[in-house]
Amino acid sequence: MPEALPPGSVIGILGGGQLGRMLAIAAARLGFACHIYEPAAAAPAADVARAWTRAAWEDEAALAAFADGVDVVTYEFENVPVATARFLEARKPVRPGPRALEIARDRLDEKRFLNGLGLTTAPFADIDGPDGIGRAIAATGLPAILKTRRMGYDGKGQVRVASEAEARAALARFGGTAAILEGVVAFNREVSVIGVRGLDGAVVCYDPAENRHEAGILRESRVPAALSRREANDAVLASGRILNALDYVGVIGVEFFAAKNGLYVNEFAPRVHNSGHWTIEACRVDQFQNHIRAIAGWPLGDGARQWDATMTNLIGDACAAWRGLAAEDGVALHLYGKAEVRPGRKMGHVTRLLPRT
Amino acid sequence: MPEALPPGSVIGILGGGQLGRMLAIAAARLGFACHIYEPAAAAPAADVARAWTRAAWEDEAALAAFADGVDVVTYEFENVPVATARFLEARKPVRPGPRALEIARDRLDEKRFLNGLGLTTAPFADIDGPDGIGRAIAATGLPAILKTRRMGYDGKGQVRVASEAEARAALARFGGTAAILEGVVAFNREVSVIGVRGLDGAVVCYDPAENRHEAGILRESRVPAALSRREANDAVLASGRILNALDYVGVIGVEFFAAKNGLYVNEFAPRVHNSGHWTIEACRVDQFQNHIRAIAGWPLGDGARQWDATMTNLIGDACAAWRGLAAEDGVALHLYGKAEVRPGRKMGHVTRLLPRT
Repeated sequence: MPEALPPGSVIGILGGGQLGRMLAIAAARLGFACHIYEPAAAAPAADVARAWTRAAWEDEAALAAFADGVDVVTYEFENVPVATARFLEARKPVRPGPRALEIARDRLDEKRFLNGLGLTTAPFADIDGPDGIGRAIAATGLPAILKTRRMGYDGKGQVRVASEAEARAALARFGGTAAILEGVVAFNREVSVIGVRGLDGAVVCYDPAENRHEAGILRESRVPAALSRREANDAVLASGRILNALDYVGVIGVEFFAAKNGLYVNEFAPRVHNSGHWTIEACRVDQFQNHIRAIAGWPLGDGARQWDATMTNLIGDACAAWRGLAAEDGVALHLYGKAEVRPGRKMGHVTRLLPRT
Repeated sequence: MPEALPPGSVIGILGGGQLGRMLAIAAARLGFACHIYEPAAAAPAADVARAWTRAAWEDEAALAAFADGVDVVTYEFENVPVATARFLEARKPVRPGPRALEIARDRLDEKRFLNGLGLTTAPFADIDGPDGIGRAIAATGLPAILKTRRMGYDGKGQVRVASEAEARAALARFGGTAAILEGVVAFNREVSVIGVRGLDGAVVCYDPAENRHEAGILRESRVPAALSRREANDAVLASGRILNALDYVGVIGVEFFAAKNGLYVNEFAPRVHNSGHWTIEACRVDQFQNHIRAIAGWPLGDGARQWDATMTNLIGDACAAWRGLAAEDGVALHLYGKAEVRPGRKMGHVTRLLPRT
């Protein structure tokens, strides 16, 4: 076994949103303290942490001081600049390693990496400018989805196009950002696997969840997903392959399309994942604690599903229903402590459990 | 329904130990922020709170500023001076109210209060000085337990005496502190009920736990307790009577002796209770969240027991076993983030679940 960080160690978390908040809570349960690094004016995670450094991702003095004060660094947000992670890595262990961050933040690199592992993705083509659109459409067919290579999440930076003219217009709206075109997969359902890999290479995967998105934002995750035994196994094996190829440490969220002819990997997020929030109530050890265990070099915990579950995000105004939800029997209510309600903003979630089928 | 505090409100917690830490975590899950008031140099709860005021219980300027910054005040520690609670009560709601604090902190007042409700306690007698010992022994018999009236917890401030000479010597060691003598109850088992009462008067009681103490410190709690249906009902009804008599808001821990001839109330703690830690894993809504719900004026949550459970405290050096416990299947490990290990100090606990019998 590698050296484990003892209780009392300090975990540095890059990003101060709700994922950081739930990570900090999980860390506290195991006797760790957390230090949040978040440039924004508000950081829900800082309310459950010992310290908060509010500084820019490029502020090397602040980053160096942060590194001095922590024993390990992790992130709750995949758009942390790779240079930030590399700077910190020279001072303290960064887990998962910056390579996962680097690949996951670029949709072209990500797809090439996945194909390189023998995993199926939607057909895709690089677009190096307006002149490349015709060639890209020839590779993917139409309709297709034009996506920026970087900074895409929750449906941002992507648009569905049905013609070359639409693709041209969308690319112009992206303002010359590097982009890719992806073919549309005729899928039956979207599923995801939350996997975790320990410092010793042990892998635990939670049962695949079935996800429903609206306007690009996750609305609901259900377990068990309506997959055949073979599809579920394939999803778990693909997730394990990604974890091992990256020599990954921590939790990853891998999204799939389940289609008639098999599974397509859509993308992965090198962090705890919204579609794994059901694990808080439905598993002995949830994704947050297992992430902390992994990055601290501890043995991974039991991820077996104890209940069937449905997790529903509270997006924007939906959080106004908190009174009714708090009174509803069998509902586990989670609110993220965000001061400002905005449309499309994840304000909380609820999980409903049912006896395991 | 009374007015409920909305998410985003700030909960002030008097005391910064592990109970405050677990309360702060529960509060954060519901979207609240916490502000800890703790005079000591270390406060495990402050690591999961937005703010920490480190000041004396008598520091009125600090207390006034604390009251200004919070929406409701609660406590995790029953030896907060009543004057502190009264000072705060003039500024913000204090829940549970100072009266519960006042009664619970004095063993004589507590027993008189319990008897006044028609609840059975061990026989007891006030000792107003060495001359009162003979009269007290006549009331309780021997052996008996000499206890300070105040500041007793975890076995502190109490000693078993078998003769008048021993009682005299023990009283001298207490240094003239007000004391009581209690008769020894020949009990079969020690049990406790964690009860909670909402701002609207609703009451939820968790299943009674069976407790094992060593050297006056709780070592283990088990649910279900080996009680008859009638004994379990009596314990729950007695707890409800105490909650209602105090017009209580929040969680209370009531300890009983189960004897051949019925239940004796030993004492109650006006706060979340060590013997209720099993509720974290074994119930939908645990004692900490239900305390937060109650003091925030929210509806109480489902306290039904989903699993059988055994909770074992990690006292002193026992926390050194964290590696093995983290690797043990089916163990939920909790560590409190205390920097210094001391004999008799509660460093963490573990809960083991079994299918419900």
